[in-house]
Amino acid sequence: MKKAKFIVVEGLEGSGKSTAVKIISTTLTNAGILKVKSTREPGGTNLAEKIRLLIKEEPKNESLQNMTELLLLYAARVQSVEHIIKPALSKGIWVVSDRHDMSSQTYQGAGRNISSNILSMLKETILVDLIPDLTFYLDLDPKIGLERVYSRDFGKVDRIEKMDIDFFNRTRECYLKLANEDCNTVIIDAEQNMVQVANDIRNILNTWLNIR
Amino acid sequence: MKKAKFIVVEGLEGSGKSTAVKIISTTLTNAGILKVKSTREPGGTNLAEKIRLLIKEEPKNESLQNMTELLLLYAARVQSVEHIIKPALSKGIWVVSDRHDMSSQTYQGAGRNISSNILSMLKETILVDLIPDLTFYLDLDPKIGLERVYSRDFGKVDRIEKMDIDFFNRTRECYLKLANEDCNTVIIDAEQNMVQVANDIRNILNTWLNIR
Repeated sequence: MKKAKFIVVEGLEGSGKSTAVKIISTTLTNAGILKVKSTREPGGTNLAEKIRLLIKEEPKNESLQNMTELLLLYAARVQSVEHIIKPALSKGIWVVSDRHDMSSQTYQGAGRNISSNILSMLKETILVDLIPDLTFYLDLDPKIGLERVYSRDFGKVDRIEKMDIDFFNRTRECYLKLANEDCNTVIIDAEQNMVQVANDIRNILNTWLNIR
Repeated sequence: MKKAKFIVVEGLEGSGKSTAVKIISTTLTNAGILKVKSTREPGGTNLAEKIRLLIKEEPKNESLQNMTELLLLYAARVQSVEHIIKPALSKGIWVVSDRHDMSSQTYQGAGRNISSNILSMLKETILVDLIPDLTFYLDLDPKIGLERVYSRDFGKVDRIEKMDIDFFNRTRECYLKLANEDCNTVIIDAEQNMVQVANDIRNILNTWLNIR
């Protein structure tokens, strides 16, 4: 049995991550990889989904502190890693995740200006040697992504989607930096239409599968 | 205006912390300190109380990982520190808290065997220079405390109270070590009856207030 792989989709709001996860899963199945599990972060397990809700909603009469947000995200990640990702991989099931650790490095690190010391410590403690085999970073101008979100959800947006454009610009800049530094990350132009994005993902994934 | 103080009550399950908080608040009022706020950890704010519920209940079909527990506790602590403790102290309001950081050092550090590096990093990052002015540690044999909990709550116990006796013995040992090392912590014999415990707390608090 070939070792199961861990594939992650990253990107800003409205970049098409959940569609990309479906495309990847289908492409894997078509390539003969039948055991595939898709998940998302924050979330995946029952407890992690409850934590997701706390992160997404605006609390009443208090602001959700940046450090609280970070700790909640990593709390959800621990559950995702220990109860979904690692058990699946150890059973030979491939995992495709909508977001993973790169989101914290970019949103909390660059977006919220949380020190890299804390981020590194949490990453090393919690992930140890879990590293995605392949990451698709869906790159787009945050303005375009947010327009998509606002039109898709009829103007109903969550606490993160409400952040100002500078926050997303800082996050995108960090995404591009990390994606360029990491040889396992592929940058996809997510400003293209969905058919083109899907083709790019399929072609890259099939090439990657063939050279494994 | 005299600087407001931060007083913490620590101890195992069934040691009488919530009663001690009331005794302290009343003693302060009787001593002419009229602005007193009592709170608890995890909890205090709306969001922190929601996090408390996640920590206390046993999740379905997954185990709450030790690291998740630690991160949730600190997430709740950030909200407590930033929205209750610091704002109160800065307005001259005294704060009396049922548990604070020493609980994480003992339960998560000694009880759960989480490395002191992570605990120190979280403590330093989140608390910075917030240190309790006075801590009452209510010491008792965990067996006695758990018997009280089981008889009080008619056998209905939460995820933490269900832990085995070795967990609580490790936690108590660490409490005693920290209490002996810290000159701002007073050890109260919580195996005594409530009248004696209340007298001890009142006497020590009044002496402490007089020498301030």
